[in-house]
Amino acid sequence: MNAEIISVGTEILMGQITNTNARYLSEKLASLGVDVYFQTTVGDNFERLKQALSIAFSRSNMVILTGGLGPTGDDITKEAAASYFDMPLYLNDEALAAIEKYFQKLNRKMTKNNEKQAMFPKEAIILPNDNGTAPGCIMEKGDKAAILLPGPPNEMVPMFEKYVIPYLKEKSRDVIYSKVLRFIGIGEAALEERLSDLLESQTNPTLALYAKEGEVTVRVSAKAKDENEAKKLVEDMCGVLISRCPDEFYAYGDDNSLVKVVCKALMERNLSISTAESCTGGLLGQNITSIPGASQIFSQGIITYSNSAKMQYLGVREETLKTHGAVSCECAKEMAQGMRRISNSDISVAITGIAGPSGGTAEKPVGLVYISLAHKNGVCVKKFNFSGSREKIRNYAVLNALNLVREYLNGTLDKQGEKLLNKNKCSVWRIFIWRIKRLKKKAQLTKRMLY
Amino acid sequence: MNAEIISVGTEILMGQITNTNARYLSEKLASLGVDVYFQTTVGDNFERLKQALSIAFSRSNMVILTGGLGPTGDDITKEAAASYFDMPLYLNDEALAAIEKYFQKLNRKMTKNNEKQAMFPKEAIILPNDNGTAPGCIMEKGDKAAILLPGPPNEMVPMFEKYVIPYLKEKSRDVIYSKVLRFIGIGEAALEERLSDLLESQTNPTLALYAKEGEVTVRVSAKAKDENEAKKLVEDMCGVLISRCPDEFYAYGDDNSLVKVVCKALMERNLSISTAESCTGGLLGQNITSIPGASQIFSQGIITYSNSAKMQYLGVREETLKTHGAVSCECAKEMAQGMRRISNSDISVAITGIAGPSGGTAEKPVGLVYISLAHKNGVCVKKFNFSGSREKIRNYAVLNALNLVREYLNGTLDKQGEKLLNKNKCSVWRIFIWRIKRLKKKAQLTKRMLY
Repeated sequence: MNAEIISVGTEILMGQITNTNARYLSEKLASLGVDVYFQTTVGDNFERLKQALSIAFSRSNMVILTGGLGPTGDDITKEAAASYFDMPLYLNDEALAAIEKYFQKLNRKMTKNNEKQAMFPKEAIILPNDNGTAPGCIMEKGDKAAILLPGPPNEMVPMFEKYVIPYLKEKSRDVIYSKVLRFIGIGEAALEERLSDLLESQTNPTLALYAKEGEVTVRVSAKAKDENEAKKLVEDMCGVLISRCPDEFYAYGDDNSLVKVVCKALMERNLSISTAESCTGGLLGQNITSIPGASQIFSQGIITYSNSAKMQYLGVREETLKTHGAVSCECAKEMAQGMRRISNSDISVAITGIAGPSGGTAEKPVGLVYISLAHKNGVCVKKFNFSGSREKIRNYAVLNALNLVREYLNGTLDKQGEKLLNKNKCSVWRIFIWRIKRLKKKAQLTKRMLY
Repeated sequence: MNAEIISVGTEILMGQITNTNARYLSEKLASLGVDVYFQTTVGDNFERLKQALSIAFSRSNMVILTGGLGPTGDDITKEAAASYFDMPLYLNDEALAAIEKYFQKLNRKMTKNNEKQAMFPKEAIILPNDNGTAPGCIMEKGDKAAILLPGPPNEMVPMFEKYVIPYLKEKSRDVIYSKVLRFIGIGEAALEERLSDLLESQTNPTLALYAKEGEVTVRVSAKAKDENEAKKLVEDMCGVLISRCPDEFYAYGDDNSLVKVVCKALMERNLSISTAESCTGGLLGQNITSIPGASQIFSQGIITYSNSAKMQYLGVREETLKTHGAVSCECAKEMAQGMRRISNSDISVAITGIAGPSGGTAEKPVGLVYISLAHKNGVCVKKFNFSGSREKIRNYAVLNALNLVREYLNGTLDKQGEKLLNKNKCSVWRIFIWRIKRLKKKAQLTKRMLY
């Protein structure tokens, strides 16, 4: 099966936004075994869109369109597709009721021009929109099908997953089964090297590596006559991949993420976490609380951006800041320990570093970040030298803070640190493991910290 | 003048990378007055690329291609374009010398297959590549021109800026000038309504509305014989637009953002800000600290995700939480006031709400968010009913918190609140303005808050 993607929107042609929809759809279609040979972007122009549809349908029987389903006169995707198929549009009462309901939920009145969004050909399959006013639809004629989806990714993605994937699976003859493996703490090139023999000899299943900021995913896809056969091919290959990188593999799944995996593990073990952030300024807290139900494991975090805040809230000693500076192993350690004391959480993670673009020195360059984890038996710190933009450095810091928690939970904190340092030439290494020996000082320290 | 963009690369069709080149080129071309009506992506396939070229040249005289200029057999862009124009390829000594020199610089030996990258039609204009091995080129035949650029953005962008922009400027007669205006606190539909007469009658300058999450931008572009004339047309229209939405307009510029504008304003006035976050879990702090130099205005923030943390750090009264709950006007107010007391900052912003997906009730639905701003003369709270995903609700909350700061700095906090409520039917309205009457209680409160 093959398909084409048409992205509709003058804002894409003007370069005001990046076309992330085409990428998302292409990736999903590839994983479903649907080949995409062309992507086209066209503006909000009736004639040009009809022309693009006609070209696309001359090459493929299925065209997926995004954008142009809004309520204004500019939005012409549905009208152009219906005109291409020669299908008149009618007001669909069910779709109209759904739009009205959406407005009620927002406590706003529906305007007359939203009615346009409820106009569909009689034959169309309507795809409800749970996150906006624009329903999507599938128009079929003969062996041709146009799938119309809204432009905003937060509306398009859920609609595609809920309604279009089942539709596509039903259409396909071969069964495709695929699984995504997620790795952290290893670069794309290093992973490619470790898997080079598998990558070179791949036929079925196929392997596709993809590097995102700070992590690498591998998609394993197999085609077979039935699902069991395809599944077996994929599972066997997954086993081999994981055996090559047992410490770096952290989860399966396309929409999984390190923060999800870590939060889930904390929830399962009933462990609480708190955060003390300097250079990331709340990004770690934000990541943890992006997970629904985070309140089970997270009750508090402190953003101590200034030195005085580090002393005021976390009890970092003035001497430490004077001798070692705020971006130091010692400060990170005291931040994590201080946070754990005041929050009474099982684990506290602290991040301090230089995110740039300025503020770096020869001794402490931009990208230098210390991440510390305090737990019931002690505290450890890792030193990182990240490179890239301020945003990238902050993202890497948070990802590696989460990875530290993962390693702690897996009991691989020691092993991993040394391994990365010695074998993979990774810029990530572990410096110290401290044991808190004088727990008796806790009460005193707490007092000092609060004033 | 108009042009089309063809992006060549199977990795784009597989969804392995996002096509940022098309966006960059479209934006640049728009600013140069070159209209782009179509963007096409095609894989590394000779026949399909020739077909795409033929379609593109049937609509435009200029086609810009990126990707497929590498040394391997997969790279077929130059070969397909030369074949389309019926021009044989020859080894170009100058290009070969440049590639050899590039390898010398890297201390690496050139391989035989890099010679392919020095093959060009005799008539081609060769575009040197200062950042990689693949030279670009321009092939012209009759009134048609194909501009071939390498795929990696760090090679493509400098080549485009250094060689292609001068080439295009020479070809173009008109001057284009454009400016982007940014609006917050008004929806796309409402803005469209307010500008409807201008949108309907637009010819030169043209207006293009674009809604991003929570804000709307308008690009004003004018074409003229010289820059001064184009500039005047744009500036006059900008004046009209701002006069229609004086409170909602917040900045010019494509790469400006509300957080940038607010942080800059705080820096200019030498005002400090601190944050107390519940449902956004650090997202506001993260946003503020994403701005380089944020330490000038931001020293601390507290993520009080649990009720006990709200009491422990911010001195929110147990009675308040019992009577009104954590998601209430009263709690938001006490959070902001408490944060201001402990941080000694000029402004404190607090956010408390229900981000969902669960946790909502009939009385307090998902999306209910209270945002409070405490300042030297008092404290105000706004109530919001957002809709959408957890992510969207949290993003909206942060955007509106920043807008509250903007309104405070502009002195439009009162006016704006009432206006939105009465005239624009926006779900944003203002509830209370309190005055702190008993400042004398400060010391007592501070004490209670710390224990």
